[in-house]
Amino acid sequence: MAIRTLVWGENVHEQTNKTVAGIYPEGMHTQIAKLLAADEEISVKTTTLQEPEHGLTERALGETDVLVWWGHQAHGDVGDEIVERVAKRVWEGMGLIVLHSGHFSKIFKRLMGSPCALNWREAGERERLWVVNPGHPIARGLPAYFEIENEEMYGEPFSVPEPLETVFVSWFQGGEVFRSGLTYRRGAGNVFYFRPGHETYPTYHHETVGLVLRNAVNWAYNPERYPTITTAPNVPVENALEPIEARGGSVHAEGQEGFR
Amino acid sequence: MAIRTLVWGENVHEQTNKTVAGIYPEGMHTQIAKLLAADEEISVKTTTLQEPEHGLTERALGETDVLVWWGHQAHGDVGDEIVERVAKRVWEGMGLIVLHSGHFSKIFKRLMGSPCALNWREAGERERLWVVNPGHPIARGLPAYFEIENEEMYGEPFSVPEPLETVFVSWFQGGEVFRSGLTYRRGAGNVFYFRPGHETYPTYHHETVGLVLRNAVNWAYNPERYPTITTAPNVPVENALEPIEARGGSVHAEGQEGFR
Amino acid sequence: MAIRTLVWGENVHEQTNKTVAGIYPEGMHTQIAKLLAADEEISVKTTTLQEPEHGLTERALGETDVLVWWGHQAHGDVGDEIVERVAKRVWEGMGLIVLHSGHFSKIFKRLMGSPCALNWREAGERERLWVVNPGHPIARGLPAYFEIENEEMYGEPFSVPEPLETVFVSWFQGGEVFRSGLTYRRGAGNVFYFRPGHETYPTYHHETVGLVLRNAVNWAYNPERYPTITTAPNVPVENALEPIEARGGSVHAEGQEGFR
Amino acid sequence: MAIRTLVWGENVHEQTNKTVAGIYPEGMHTQIAKLLAADEEISVKTTTLQEPEHGLTERALGETDVLVWWGHQAHGDVGDEIVERVAKRVWEGMGLIVLHSGHFSKIFKRLMGSPCALNWREAGERERLWVVNPGHPIARGLPAYFEIENEEMYGEPFSVPEPLETVFVSWFQGGEVFRSGLTYRRGAGNVFYFRPGHETYPTYHHETVGLVLRNAVNWAYNPERYPTITTAPNVPVENALEPIEARGGSVHAEGQEGFR
Repeated sequence: MAIRTLVWGENVHEQTNKTVAGIYPEGMHTQIAKLLAADEEISVKTTTLQEPEHGLTERALGETDVLVWWGHQAHGDVGDEIVERVAKRVWEGMGLIVLHSGHFSKIFKRLMGSPCALNWREAGERERLWVVNPGHPIARGLPAYFEIENEEMYGEPFSVPEPLETVFVSWFQGGEVFRSGLTYRRGAGNVFYFRPGHETYPTYHHETVGLVLRNAVNWAYNPERYPTITTAPNVPVENALEPIEARGGSVHAEGQEGFR
Repeated sequence: MAIRTLVWGENVHEQTNKTVAGIYPEGMHTQIAKLLAADEEISVKTTTLQEPEHGLTERALGETDVLVWWGHQAHGDVGDEIVERVAKRVWEGMGLIVLHSGHFSKIFKRLMGSPCALNWREAGERERLWVVNPGHPIARGLPAYFEIENEEMYGEPFSVPEPLETVFVSWFQGGEVFRSGLTYRRGAGNVFYFRPGHETYPTYHHETVGLVLRNAVNWAYNPERYPTITTAPNVPVENALEPIEARGGSVHAEGQEGFR
Repeated sequence: MAIRTLVWGENVHEQTNKTVAGIYPEGMHTQIAKLLAADEEISVKTTTLQEPEHGLTERALGETDVLVWWGHQAHGDVGDEIVERVAKRVWEGMGLIVLHSGHFSKIFKRLMGSPCALNWREAGERERLWVVNPGHPIARGLPAYFEIENEEMYGEPFSVPEPLETVFVSWFQGGEVFRSGLTYRRGAGNVFYFRPGHETYPTYHHETVGLVLRNAVNWAYNPERYPTITTAPNVPVENALEPIEARGGSVHAEGQEGFR
Repeated sequence: MAIRTLVWGENVHEQTNKTVAGIYPEGMHTQIAKLLAADEEISVKTTTLQEPEHGLTERALGETDVLVWWGHQAHGDVGDEIVERVAKRVWEGMGLIVLHSGHFSKIFKRLMGSPCALNWREAGERERLWVVNPGHPIARGLPAYFEIENEEMYGEPFSVPEPLETVFVSWFQGGEVFRSGLTYRRGAGNVFYFRPGHETYPTYHHETVGLVLRNAVNWAYNPERYPTITTAPNVPVENALEPIEARGGSVHAEGQEGFR
């Protein structure tokens, strides 16, 4: 009963930028999947933007426990109806892990309800991620900190809602800081944002990054689904758990659905 | 320097349902505004769905510190571009108080990123709101609990994100409970959801409800605006706060904006 | 590699009150342990206040992954040094589940840093627990609500810190509500407070209560320990991760420990 | 109706260390008070460890709306009964602002229920505080970041509970990060921890530090007091809000107080 994990890759930079293609000859999604496959509790598939329905068909999502998302240049090419479909699956219990530039993906902004903006600099500087919540399952087995020698800088303020918990905070060589690992729940679905992963650096060849991603998939996994989480059922008076009688005026005819 | 507060009313039930018209002959928004006006620190205006741009023009929002929202039957008639405009203002620092059936308003769902669903029953039953967070500014001056003799029931689960703080929890005669007062921050804007206020009962003639609303406006008020909260500026290497040199590959041409 | 769980029972009412002895002839702790043992991932032991060091020796705690605490009449008899020992183990990663009247136990108040007070009534009234967070691991497999026909009432305000997440809210027949399932993290240890369990009613014979407790043990389990979580090590200048030189005045002699 | 603020200073380093005495010839508490007095809504007094009852008599606390705490070397000299007295006042609604080395003060550890440990280095290095929550009242009027050229380093993990909100995160020259501004509520009292303020550097002569402290006092101010927050009153059956009849067994004699 492995955790069925789907890695979604935008797969654009790999086709157009020689540096990226050199680091990730099989695509970033393939390398991310390799990191996850090192955990035998995780069974991994990959798909990309270029597939029909971006590879995120009802069937594919129905067979997915945790979705991992990497996108950047082509956020705008993701269909709105696909975004709504993914959001609904998250609310019903599918986990979602959003990586790096995915902070501006439609699905992350949809679930956060906030701008998700930040400052940035692409200079290959040193990033040092500090574990600020050592008992959190996503930090399991990690050292006190780990370094990524070359990364893009993301700087605060990161305009996201206050998280359930902050797991990592990054130090950058150029003087900025960033909350690099943040957890959320939306409906019955667990959401984790993890900052590192710029396409022009070999971040997804970093051993500790792999451990974080495997931990995150395990943390985000919810074996149950709650298809009723989006429904707003009427409870008729005669079915009330304690006996009551209807009083006062009404705008709803008997048996009518609520307004949405 | 009063808090410029705008009460937005859908103003549909008042025109179509005799019970509602009888309780709120000048409209629900007008009565809500009267409750707020009892605080001399609050200056109140009202507007409705029927106004051009639903009364939510750039200019009107530019003169608003806190927006109070009551809608129900006509959620779907609110223009999407108006919803985005209001969301942006909230992110920049405008407060938002969402009332009762507004849980399914486009603006609330937009800011929560979750279904915002619940169970309901329109039976005029007794609701008792308990203060679970007596030190919260929104609970200031309140008794340990207060009762509304006739209200619509809303029952858990209420599929919203875990709030910053829970202020009220409701007991219902028919056997349900509901988290009735929830606080959020989205960008620089404070958001408060307050449950009571069904149109067929005189809830907005209830003295304690008025006190809650006045407290909520005071709590939600942020005198500052942050127009940059949606921007993602590049920080050039030469402007880094600590001296660094660019290393590694790049996908961004010099001076290029980030991808959204 | 089962979760080593220790059920701690005060074991006083069982010896002095016929009603309690009739419901729990082998002691409440024994019955709670039976509920847990239904999960084959959990290996259970029990101990009581009357044992040397209340059964909470360094060795016993060293072999415990999750501690379950039921106490009431004899909170004051628990030794302060034992409380500190348990708190330290929680900070290092041991899970803790505090039941019912344990809200006033020394260990819970120690970890919360707040009064942990509430209103109460011992009248055997009906309690209905609503799941307000259906996707939370502690709610796994539960129905939308469950009822306990006879329970002591606990009413808000419950003066505890805002939890990480609220899992259950209770409705009481006499008109009160209570946040009945609350999660916290203290250091590396997960803490769950669960309200039901008054000694004069057969609450720990309730099937759904058993499921909640088994879920809670699984949720609270952290396989790692962090013995350094209470230390405040000095990082000498020469060991700084980035090269710096000491500047300015000093109150600490070289190699001196910090002040506590 | 100014906010009655009491600055508590340990006042030991000023008497024993020439560097500290040179920077704060009238004591650190006096300089902190000067920063606060720049806000005409704040009326400030000071007191020190050396006063009878450390200057924290029932009367003094009864006249205090917000207490500001600076201590370091002499944490252990603060009487336990005074700590309990202060904690009780916080629970009842008094605000508390804990500065810098106060992370290890008895009162802060008492209210947090966690180790409050961290890593540290006294090397006068550069600290840059980033505002991560620009809409928070404590960040009002602040720039995106501010620098303190010489400070002691505090590094993560900071073993405190997850805060209500994180306001500041610090970057340190030597490579560490720290969550430098954290908000909590304990009972009805607002608590703010603010990191900077090492005694051997002129931090409390920094203009922006003064603005943060003034904002924090305004945020922490609660005009109400809740003396009942530590009580656990019994609600007799005959006073139940909804009519019920007592059922089942009992351990409490009629009118008996609860067990603590």
